[in-house]
Amino acid sequence: MTSSSSSAPAGSAPSLDPRADIVELTAAIVDIESVSGNEKALADAVEQALRTHARHLTVLRDGDTVIARTDLGREERVVLAGHLDTVPVADNLPSSRRVREGREELVGRGSCDMKGGVAMLLAVAVEATEPARDLTFLFYDHEEVAAADNSLTRIARTHPEHLRGDFAILGEPTSAGVEGGCKGTMKLEVTAHGTAAHSARDWVGDNAIHHLAPVLQRLDAYEARRAVIDGLEYRECLNAVAIGGGIAGNVIPDRASLTLNYRFAPDTSPAQAEAHVRELLEGCDVDIVVTDSAAGALPGLDTPAAREFLAALGDGVGVAAKQGWTDVARFAELGTPAVNFGPGDPLLAHTDDEHVPFEDLRAALDGLRRWLEPSAR
Amino acid sequence: MTSSSSSAPAGSAPSLDPRADIVELTAAIVDIESVSGNEKALADAVEQALRTHARHLTVLRDGDTVIARTDLGREERVVLAGHLDTVPVADNLPSSRRVREGREELVGRGSCDMKGGVAMLLAVAVEATEPARDLTFLFYDHEEVAAADNSLTRIARTHPEHLRGDFAILGEPTSAGVEGGCKGTMKLEVTAHGTAAHSARDWVGDNAIHHLAPVLQRLDAYEARRAVIDGLEYRECLNAVAIGGGIAGNVIPDRASLTLNYRFAPDTSPAQAEAHVRELLEGCDVDIVVTDSAAGALPGLDTPAAREFLAALGDGVGVAAKQGWTDVARFAELGTPAVNFGPGDPLLAHTDDEHVPFEDLRAALDGLRRWLEPSAR
Repeated sequence: MTSSSSSAPAGSAPSLDPRADIVELTAAIVDIESVSGNEKALADAVEQALRTHARHLTVLRDGDTVIARTDLGREERVVLAGHLDTVPVADNLPSSRRVREGREELVGRGSCDMKGGVAMLLAVAVEATEPARDLTFLFYDHEEVAAADNSLTRIARTHPEHLRGDFAILGEPTSAGVEGGCKGTMKLEVTAHGTAAHSARDWVGDNAIHHLAPVLQRLDAYEARRAVIDGLEYRECLNAVAIGGGIAGNVIPDRASLTLNYRFAPDTSPAQAEAHVRELLEGCDVDIVVTDSAAGALPGLDTPAAREFLAALGDGVGVAAKQGWTDVARFAELGTPAVNFGPGDPLLAHTDDEHVPFEDLRAALDGLRRWLEPSAR
Repeated sequence: MTSSSSSAPAGSAPSLDPRADIVELTAAIVDIESVSGNEKALADAVEQALRTHARHLTVLRDGDTVIARTDLGREERVVLAGHLDTVPVADNLPSSRRVREGREELVGRGSCDMKGGVAMLLAVAVEATEPARDLTFLFYDHEEVAAADNSLTRIARTHPEHLRGDFAILGEPTSAGVEGGCKGTMKLEVTAHGTAAHSARDWVGDNAIHHLAPVLQRLDAYEARRAVIDGLEYRECLNAVAIGGGIAGNVIPDRASLTLNYRFAPDTSPAQAEAHVRELLEGCDVDIVVTDSAAGALPGLDTPAAREFLAALGDGVGVAAKQGWTDVARFAELGTPAVNFGPGDPLLAHTDDEHVPFEDLRAALDGLRRWLEPSAR
């Protein structure tokens, strides 16, 4: 990691003006193509913009991740993070603008997921020179690929201090509403064993597929918990996502397996989640192995920072639980409660028609601005 | 089909002496390699032997199938059938002889399945010049491959009269015991439908795998019928032989399927078998489609021909139901009750160590001989 005293690769990067109109800024960021693995030009531009326009921040570079922070000795610290990369381009660059049903939209890869959020964060990073809380901005790479390649995985290991705070905001698209925390997720492989035999003489065999009967029965009858945390409802889900077995049409199979996916509320640890599944399937003649798990994230809406954030957004803003797993869980893992907040409809992410309404960009920026610099209201 | 007046391809075929010792005859037949599709040389040899040594029979040729019959106007007709082909050779030709645990054995591909049976049939075809019942001998090809290629499929369509009789014996290996009739078999595809959704939001979806729960539960609890027919017990079997479903680890699957194999007693028709499965699964939210079915075969042990056959074999001979489907069902389909009866352990069929004990060959031949020509006792 190079400190702010290192020289930036000025001149080589397309330039960004963080003080431009938020639509202009978003379009400029969208037009710097940054499919996962190709984030360098955009990271350079972001770094250069921060070094030029945000002299109140300490700017650090770690690979293609740019970190910018204040160290004003405030009582609370807020982390604001956004990924720079996108999924592959679908003939939707450079960006374009259109009006549809009376609504102005910016169209192009990354406009929704999540360069509108990156623009929002870059704008406030430059503006908020006297924030009430210390701030850490994280512009990171490799989010749209395997978790192991995500730069937050590396930074959580090498510099966890940059992910720590009293509250975190991830600029993922939420249509400028707040989606708090996220559920955890666990995969389990459930295997039944039997004895192979000719299907005309099943009494000398033992059908492994039939052993899955009580497992499916309990899943079918399962009533998932709804956990309300900080006023947000996390609906748990426990499902068979795959099932398989069979050797040949005339053979009693000696093995059958089922893959479970358990999405559990963020007040539950992976160990508790595993114990819950094992208890549910107690007495079933099967082996159970956890093959993958990731804890959820608490929304932390009862922290002072979060309460003021919600107040700044106003009553009209939707607040809901995030049901799917996102990078907010990485913050939670380091003890930082987190929410998702950004412009754009999350259902448009990764689609060929990816776009963001101008009004989302403005609403999200205004909300964040009101919170970080109350004097600007 | 050529009649007996046609000239046989004499000279071109290895010659067989049906009056030789049964072990010699079996070895000679084994040594004429006849993997499915390559039966011509053996069919030629069998045809030539019958034309030369069994002038009391009308000999017909249909492809590589040889048919030989009496037409003496007897009250009953018995069909005696054996397939000429084998599964591929496993470095076990030509045949060899050995003594193991004091028992003499002939070793080689086809010795058990079912050239010992072919030798037995060829021997009695030549010997039984004054049978009490009219006889039809069928030496047929392509049994060890797809049912559609089996020459009995063709002959049942083009010349069903050669499969018709009051009783039939198929020379499949039964260790010289009697295995009567066979069960029917049916495959059914059971499909559950649902609605795909993200596995973190299952309430907007409908898990198709979970819909299979009551199906598996009923299969697991199913108590199969044991039907006793002519004193033989046919144990029915109803099993899931395959199960499958799943789109991705984070998706609620909208489709799951299960393949059922039902082996039903020969007193039950395929239509009755299908109705039984549909009744069992009544109320389950699944589609059921029959993808394959074949009726079983009644043993017909109450026919005069069969009763005398069992009497000729004597009390010491094992009599059991055939649980697996065999070509006896083709005879049953044309109204001919049938049993399996031949030398060799059926569990050795298709194995690399395929062999037949000398004593099996002699016992089977003697039994058949006593029945067909009571005067020879």
